Amino acid sequence: MTSLQAAVDDRPREECGVCAVVGHDDAATLCYLGLYAQQHRGQETAGIVSARLGDHGGIQHRVHRGLGLVPDVFDQQTLADLGGRVCIGHVRYSTTGAPNPQNTQPIAASLRFGPVAVAHNGNLTNAHLLRASLKSQGAIFGTTIDTEVIVHLISHVMTATFEEAMHEALQSIEGAFSLVILHNDTMYAVRDAHGFRPLELGRLPNGGWMVASETVAFDLVDAKPVRSIAPGEILRIRPGAEPETLKPLPARERAQCIFEYVYFSRPDSVIDGVAVQAVRRRMGEELFREHPAEADAVICVPDSAMSPALGYAHAGSLPFVMGLVRNHYVGRTFIEPTQRIRDFGAKVKYNATRSAVAGKRLVVVDDSIVRGTTAQKIVRMLRDAGATEIHFRIASPPWRHSCLYGIDTPDPRTFAATGRDVEQIRAHLEVDSLGYLSPDGLKRAVGRQEGWCMACFTGRYPTSERRLTKEMLEDQDLSFGPLPKQFTSIGS
Amino acid sequence: MTSLQAAVDDRPREECGVCAVVGHDDAATLCYLGLYAQQHRGQETAGIVSARLGDHGGIQHRVHRGLGLVPDVFDQQTLADLGGRVCIGHVRYSTTGAPNPQNTQPIAASLRFGPVAVAHNGNLTNAHLLRASLKSQGAIFGTTIDTEVIVHLISHVMTATFEEAMHEALQSIEGAFSLVILHNDTMYAVRDAHGFRPLELGRLPNGGWMVASETVAFDLVDAKPVRSIAPGEILRIRPGAEPETLKPLPARERAQCIFEYVYFSRPDSVIDGVAVQAVRRRMGEELFREHPAEADAVICVPDSAMSPALGYAHAGSLPFVMGLVRNHYVGRTFIEPTQRIRDFGAKVKYNATRSAVAGKRLVVVDDSIVRGTTAQKIVRMLRDAGATEIHFRIASPPWRHSCLYGIDTPDPRTFAATGRDVEQIRAHLEVDSLGYLSPDGLKRAVGRQEGWCMACFTGRYPTSERRLTKEMLEDQDLSFGPLPKQFTSIGS
Amino acid sequence: MTSLQAAVDDRPREECGVCAVVGHDDAATLCYLGLYAQQHRGQETAGIVSARLGDHGGIQHRVHRGLGLVPDVFDQQTLADLGGRVCIGHVRYSTTGAPNPQNTQPIAASLRFGPVAVAHNGNLTNAHLLRASLKSQGAIFGTTIDTEVIVHLISHVMTATFEEAMHEALQSIEGAFSLVILHNDTMYAVRDAHGFRPLELGRLPNGGWMVASETVAFDLVDAKPVRSIAPGEILRIRPGAEPETLKPLPARERAQCIFEYVYFSRPDSVIDGVAVQAVRRRMGEELFREHPAEADAVICVPDSAMSPALGYAHAGSLPFVMGLVRNHYVGRTFIEPTQRIRDFGAKVKYNATRSAVAGKRLVVVDDSIVRGTTAQKIVRMLRDAGATEIHFRIASPPWRHSCLYGIDTPDPRTFAATGRDVEQIRAHLEVDSLGYLSPDGLKRAVGRQEGWCMACFTGRYPTSERRLTKEMLEDQDLSFGPLPKQFTSIGS
Amino acid sequence: MTSLQAAVDDRPREECGVCAVVGHDDAATLCYLGLYAQQHRGQETAGIVSARLGDHGGIQHRVHRGLGLVPDVFDQQTLADLGGRVCIGHVRYSTTGAPNPQNTQPIAASLRFGPVAVAHNGNLTNAHLLRASLKSQGAIFGTTIDTEVIVHLISHVMTATFEEAMHEALQSIEGAFSLVILHNDTMYAVRDAHGFRPLELGRLPNGGWMVASETVAFDLVDAKPVRSIAPGEILRIRPGAEPETLKPLPARERAQCIFEYVYFSRPDSVIDGVAVQAVRRRMGEELFREHPAEADAVICVPDSAMSPALGYAHAGSLPFVMGLVRNHYVGRTFIEPTQRIRDFGAKVKYNATRSAVAGKRLVVVDDSIVRGTTAQKIVRMLRDAGATEIHFRIASPPWRHSCLYGIDTPDPRTFAATGRDVEQIRAHLEVDSLGYLSPDGLKRAVGRQEGWCMACFTGRYPTSERRLTKEMLEDQDLSFGPLPKQFTSIGS
Repeated sequence: MTSLQAAVDDRPREECGVCAVVGHDDAATLCYLGLYAQQHRGQETAGIVSARLGDHGGIQHRVHRGLGLVPDVFDQQTLADLGGRVCIGHVRYSTTGAPNPQNTQPIAASLRFGPVAVAHNGNLTNAHLLRASLKSQGAIFGTTIDTEVIVHLISHVMTATFEEAMHEALQSIEGAFSLVILHNDTMYAVRDAHGFRPLELGRLPNGGWMVASETVAFDLVDAKPVRSIAPGEILRIRPGAEPETLKPLPARERAQCIFEYVYFSRPDSVIDGVAVQAVRRRMGEELFREHPAEADAVICVPDSAMSPALGYAHAGSLPFVMGLVRNHYVGRTFIEPTQRIRDFGAKVKYNATRSAVAGKRLVVVDDSIVRGTTAQKIVRMLRDAGATEIHFRIASPPWRHSCLYGIDTPDPRTFAATGRDVEQIRAHLEVDSLGYLSPDGLKRAVGRQEGWCMACFTGRYPTSERRLTKEMLEDQDLSFGPLPKQFTSIGS
Repeated sequence: MTSLQAAVDDRPREECGVCAVVGHDDAATLCYLGLYAQQHRGQETAGIVSARLGDHGGIQHRVHRGLGLVPDVFDQQTLADLGGRVCIGHVRYSTTGAPNPQNTQPIAASLRFGPVAVAHNGNLTNAHLLRASLKSQGAIFGTTIDTEVIVHLISHVMTATFEEAMHEALQSIEGAFSLVILHNDTMYAVRDAHGFRPLELGRLPNGGWMVASETVAFDLVDAKPVRSIAPGEILRIRPGAEPETLKPLPARERAQCIFEYVYFSRPDSVIDGVAVQAVRRRMGEELFREHPAEADAVICVPDSAMSPALGYAHAGSLPFVMGLVRNHYVGRTFIEPTQRIRDFGAKVKYNATRSAVAGKRLVVVDDSIVRGTTAQKIVRMLRDAGATEIHFRIASPPWRHSCLYGIDTPDPRTFAATGRDVEQIRAHLEVDSLGYLSPDGLKRAVGRQEGWCMACFTGRYPTSERRLTKEMLEDQDLSFGPLPKQFTSIGS
Repeated sequence: MTSLQAAVDDRPREECGVCAVVGHDDAATLCYLGLYAQQHRGQETAGIVSARLGDHGGIQHRVHRGLGLVPDVFDQQTLADLGGRVCIGHVRYSTTGAPNPQNTQPIAASLRFGPVAVAHNGNLTNAHLLRASLKSQGAIFGTTIDTEVIVHLISHVMTATFEEAMHEALQSIEGAFSLVILHNDTMYAVRDAHGFRPLELGRLPNGGWMVASETVAFDLVDAKPVRSIAPGEILRIRPGAEPETLKPLPARERAQCIFEYVYFSRPDSVIDGVAVQAVRRRMGEELFREHPAEADAVICVPDSAMSPALGYAHAGSLPFVMGLVRNHYVGRTFIEPTQRIRDFGAKVKYNATRSAVAGKRLVVVDDSIVRGTTAQKIVRMLRDAGATEIHFRIASPPWRHSCLYGIDTPDPRTFAATGRDVEQIRAHLEVDSLGYLSPDGLKRAVGRQEGWCMACFTGRYPTSERRLTKEMLEDQDLSFGPLPKQFTSIGS
Repeated sequence: MTSLQAAVDDRPREECGVCAVVGHDDAATLCYLGLYAQQHRGQETAGIVSARLGDHGGIQHRVHRGLGLVPDVFDQQTLADLGGRVCIGHVRYSTTGAPNPQNTQPIAASLRFGPVAVAHNGNLTNAHLLRASLKSQGAIFGTTIDTEVIVHLISHVMTATFEEAMHEALQSIEGAFSLVILHNDTMYAVRDAHGFRPLELGRLPNGGWMVASETVAFDLVDAKPVRSIAPGEILRIRPGAEPETLKPLPARERAQCIFEYVYFSRPDSVIDGVAVQAVRRRMGEELFREHPAEADAVICVPDSAMSPALGYAHAGSLPFVMGLVRNHYVGRTFIEPTQRIRDFGAKVKYNATRSAVAGKRLVVVDDSIVRGTTAQKIVRMLRDAGATEIHFRIASPPWRHSCLYGIDTPDPRTFAATGRDVEQIRAHLEVDSLGYLSPDGLKRAVGRQEGWCMACFTGRYPTSERRLTKEMLEDQDLSFGPLPKQFTSIGS
């Protein structure tokens, strides 16, 4: 038995989504809903930490984390038990090893400032150096994730106040970090100065505040998007008070992840003021301008390439049809007939609609190609269904480099574009023509020419670190085994 | 905690899908895949019965059934344990009471002919009468589902052969029945003479045979669609032999369920020789012809109304945009903030994309409206997102009557169209205009004017039975409690 | 992974326990507690059927059955859902195949008399003949257990009343049957005319009635034991009425299972008016009289042989010590180091207490020996712990024949006593002396010379049937696979 | 639904058991078996950490921990995945809050010395002071258990070697600690200088070594007990080398927990060279000498008081009978009829055997009384069963003080002996006479007059700390919620 998702999907994976709610009696439930709306950013673990009155009088952090989808981890009892008017939460797709209770977020710890919890979207590029340095000062690491480094840094700064310590700690870390930090019942929203990953501020109908990776978290609970957390900003939100921007982190080159618009974010989100779906449609329009095709119909690889395909069809005045149907139950563990996974994989996820494609010259639009294995299967499936020509159009440039900033990608040696030029990729995919959207075209679609991280396409990394090995990403002293027996029969 | 699907979805529900595989060493796995592809036809129970050599020499039926999605019920061990070269399978959405191990199909029983198993898609309209008659002859009923009646009927016919008994039994039952029946290792595919529900024949690459409710089951395992089982046909398939059509059931008025094309079947299926997706697109085109609208954009209620919306947009030369986004994780149990379910329901399932709809006059296409509760929420959501006009277009006629033939619908008193004319429905939904596709338009889209069951729209039932109460549908002597504790924490 | 219980325990297994409660608002909970107290009679499935008002006005039977221990199957919700003032219940150890939802009891069915449910302790010796005959009359069998035969027989008797049909049906069946039958809300307690298995009547503090296999079910809920159901008796109990004895079954040779006193029943039960524990102590006293030993201490194989060992020690004025300690967590699935199960088996279940046995001549008392594998391991363990002599004393005669009346025993070819006289068994067990209690000694201990079934010791079967093969015990047309995935990680 | 164990059992609870295996290819499985044999020392969590070659070449610690009984947490896959030739393990009964994945042991961490894991039986009396001090040096605490303090202390000692750091850390901690510590693949067994809790050394048949809280862990895997770890000893064991005793901890007053002999340890264990069961029998003999009784029979509260009862009966030449029978399935969650828990509690766990006690003057022997609630119920049960006199005899002194050294006891205000002299306790229990074994008698039974911790009886605490509040025991900054949904239906 294998996870079908892993078997057939060669898309990159977002590692995390964060959420925070400040100043609402139902904070835990709202945080839960905010995570639920961001489930696409991480399906393996979920967690919430609430700030509430402890039995001894002070503020206590109540922690509830678990494995699985958000509704698997929480129920009414656990949300009631969390209580509190301030909460932070996290969903995670674990990049290495099996998902494990030890590596769930938010990280929660007790330190001399009192309880501190951190939820992190991104990836620290100097975590390995900091970890070694912290250990030499006596720190012990109980997880293998880089987020733990942040808590240690805060604790090891020997300053008078938590905020000073946090500020100093945040200056030590490099890479991508959109954070929600809970100290006692004060919440801090932090975004690295490059602004790699999104982080948005919203307002609840009752006047409380909400922070989330994506605005879809606000929509679900009737919160209104207010603005993005600025790159380098540290925003403090206390219950009953207005948010205050603290002294920012030192400025860096702006380097917002452009791939959030291409694939990661939900189409109904607005990231840094730009509506994702509108971008995607323009990507398709630009793609047609750069790579038109003589064809009878445009189809897409559902669901993420729907909008660029519609844009392409619209720009080219071509009919858009549903040539591929997606099976929405995919993602659960699935039994493969031995040795046939290559043949079955894509079919289980997608099926070609013969009536829509037979005898036609097709434009097939996808948002990106990483390894190209799914693309190959789709091509074969469409030819079997009677397509006469297949013109593949990709709404982003060729993916040629690993992401260091929080996206999980396969080994670059397996990328379709590695060692191949576009003509060679076309031959590899066995399509009649192939066109990738240019970097400029992509930037035009987003509507801003500067301030992007496009390292996955260009290899130009905005940080000094150029390469992170598995040893650098994870503490190698520890590993966590497969899940306890109790979990083995439970879905997802 | 409530099932969100139940809370927000007011679409009718298909009750069942069937599958049979004859003549393949991997019959159980192929049957599993065939059920998996038909998961949309029933998500509450799944089961397979295989014919294999028993320990005592004869053919034994091995039964494996359970609660949950197909991959929840089966694993490699259970499929290996089923064994056999002939299998029948079933997925079910239970219409009444809690899903229960007792009411899973295929029904399997030992009778004087040897082992017999039956999987049924449809609904018998005279089951209550037959049940009473059979009891008076000494039959005992261990389930509350009508399928058990069929096995009793076969057993109570005092004829020489199984096939004679089966033929006589099949003449006694009325209503909708697409069946796969397993006796020893011979499989029979049966479709009632009205042809209410679909039943398709396919051929495996190795020469073996497959029968399924929809052709998507064939696609997944590289089987080729051959033809439909004809209304009234009894097709016998033995391993290693060609299918043989036995003496048919007495002819009846043809009454194929037109709603399979509107909503139930997967768009990539071909039902009775007609491609579902092509029909849906034409439904949209006809809808535009009958009810054009002055608008800036066409959107759909995803995912089922995608094709009619594309057809509408194409016919009207209007831009199609993704104004509503569907959350694909919905369906799992979900915690609602108390008392707010009305507000949250539709938002959890759909979200409006402000950038796509703000300031626009919208055509919103849906395939059908039953209670209209979701439609109301969507309208409100789109207005909140800035839509200036909303023109609702429904790709089928108003739903006004219960289905007696295997589709679960809410109480007709709750239908949006009950006691309202179209203008009143329009006011009820608070839309600027409302148009339903006419019965004739729908038939034009399918491409055939006669031979349809459209009772849900017209109230003209092709069978003598006009009304089935809960008492008639289910044996009232028995009821089965909620699931055992072991199930309560397991998803979906 | 193997079930340790199965791996190390070579004791025979009781197949079932029954319970009924009539006339109490908490009938379901009391029935649950009655089953809980009889958990030792069956650990694989549990079920309760209640009689309550149905939605359509008449009496409806509500069924809740599941796999696992009693507290695994029921919770407060399921008990509340059962409702009703009359309930019958069942615990089962399944003798063949995997435990399966299909084969759980009580059997519940709807027949022309209305709802009927049956819970059965025992085994029918002519079930295979009746099953064939019933099938020829059109009956269909949905389970593989003999209890289903009883319901079919009742249904196929074409008499005017349920009670007449039941009486006729009960005259057709042979073998061991202690039954509680529920028809509408009337409960019947039935015991075969041989009186093989126990069946006791008790009275609840509120005046309601209770029937159970053992009186321990009464103790737990403060019910008072009233009397045994007599062999051949059919006792009708309606809510609010006094029990009435109907016309009895035709008389047969009394043949009460003596092994209930030796091992099956709980020591605190009173069976047919005789206290089990007192019998067991007298068995030990008789055993000393028949087989005294020169020894330093008496030990027992815990826990069942405790009382005979105390009796032996008392009769012989020998000190009784705890030379073997039992691990009470055994019974859960347990991982064996490959190939070492022979060595580990008994140790996991028992451990020798070196301080209590080293340097001593021991009398080891056990209640019975079936295969002798555990005995061999215990002997080795005690020698390793320093015992100088081991005198095995068995508080019952050598087990030489299969039970046909509801007890699961291994293949007789594996019995320690098969093909061996006592001296050969002694050599096989490698003990210094071996003594079995004689049949007469056993009967003296119970206090009655006549009316026993001792077929397992003597081979004299009270019924005409002498041998039941697996084919005769189970319907061979059907088999049920391993448990659904959802169960695989759940305890017991 | 309540945990019955919690509801009816007022015995104190052992908090932990530890195990270590060094130098065996099956180390993880042997460690698993060693934990399994010590399941009575902790039933809520279990864990193993193995030392094995990591992917990057060095030694990596592989961690597997979970909630539930040992066989619930591990299966063959997880044991295989642990691998390694050196392992440490732990079972735990959590004393405060819900059991939680975060608080499972062994604690595993990565520090500058490499990977370190610690499993701890006992309780540190200065953990709260050390925790505060460590936090002020920058330590962050991720659990609420005192064991984490030990790892921090080791890490914060700025010495050259791990062993120096460990030695210094161990000198800082006070209270009870029997530890197995794993650093890379070297294992250290450590026992505090008071010697509160047991720690035993054994040798495997292959020459490898084993350390465990109790010798029963050795018995199960054919290891031979070698000796106890001495109070204050630090024993280093490397694979392939002989154990070496390092420089010991500074000497303290010997204060071995005498209650291990009274109740905690398994009777078949040998603790510090003294066989537990032999002690218990002598306790009964001493008890008779101090408190003889005119009676017809001696019974015990099973199972722990069996040996003292046998000793009492033997010394007094009184017959020992099984007057109370224990239901071995108790411990699983269990549904109580509302408001009747007081009446049902003890009956569910114990049942009186009327035949053994009716009309008799009874001596009832128990090992200890904490709150006395079970004793009261048993007295009532025995009187209901016809006992004419009840002479309670307790094989240890009155329990009057909380344990600070690793045993969980209820609030001392609820102790039966709080505010009552023996006569008042007798009246409270409503027995005819009551006798407690004197401290001297208990010491005579164990065979040594000095070197015991008897603080629970005498209030004389061997450490300076006299009282630990919940705030001192647990870090109050954090708390962990109830278990994730996935666990709620799983047994125990």
